[in-house]
Amino acid sequence: MNDKVNLAEKFALLDEPYNPATVGYVNDAKIVVALIEGEFVWHTHDDTDDFFLVMDGELTIQLRDDDVVLGAGELFVVPRGVEHCPKADVPTRVVLIEKAGTPNTGDTGGEMTRAEREI
Amino acid sequence: MNDKVNLAEKFALLDEPYNPATVGYVNDAKIVVALIEGEFVWHTHDDTDDFFLVMDGELTIQLRDDDVVLGAGELFVVPRGVEHCPKADVPTRVVLIEKAGTPNTGDTGGEMTRAEREI
Repeated sequence: MNDKVNLAEKFALLDEPYNPATVGYVNDAKIVVALIEGEFVWHTHDDTDDFFLVMDGELTIQLRDDDVVLGAGELFVVPRGVEHCPKADVPTRVVLIEKAGTPNTGDTGGEMTRAEREI
Repeated sequence: MNDKVNLAEKFALLDEPYNPATVGYVNDAKIVVALIEGEFVWHTHDDTDDFFLVMDGELTIQLRDDDVVLGAGELFVVPRGVEHCPKADVPTRVVLIEKAGTPNTGDTGGEMTRAEREI
């Protein structure tokens, strides 16, 4: 995991939405690629902020009091402890940065939970 | 600093190479935009890894035993303690993530040192 990362090559390895994969680490955080399409689940990470950068497509980060809509080249950080639910109407490629060990579904769990994996 | 960040808008505010600016935070790290052109100085950050993502242009991260060349959509993390020197032959826009409080010139200092600032 010490080589450079070509994001397009990594995104090409993703075969389904909401099955994120780690492509590197910076300090105690994992650098993750994810394909987003459809709606995820409402969840909270109590011990990490959650960085989202859209590479292409359009991501809506639903918050309980607002929606944040991100196009390509836009980023948003969900503060720790803030409930959120991503969704996308078109296939959307996203880079996430959050503490390593953070479950994708946060405190919610359920069938959309995926084990951490590296690609 | 709690709104979404449009990177193109932030890059448009940069008026010179190697004068980075913070656009947000994720946990204890700052999210930085920088315009890179020409050669920087060799330096080391002993207490933080250094994440580089190229948005456009071409960045060479010189290491003492290798060069890492990044095009648009490519990223590399310089591990803490590893001496490095960025350079670019063309104007290159980069997103960096590293611990807040990290000087841009690391342990080297000198005339290319810039104070942290937010835009």
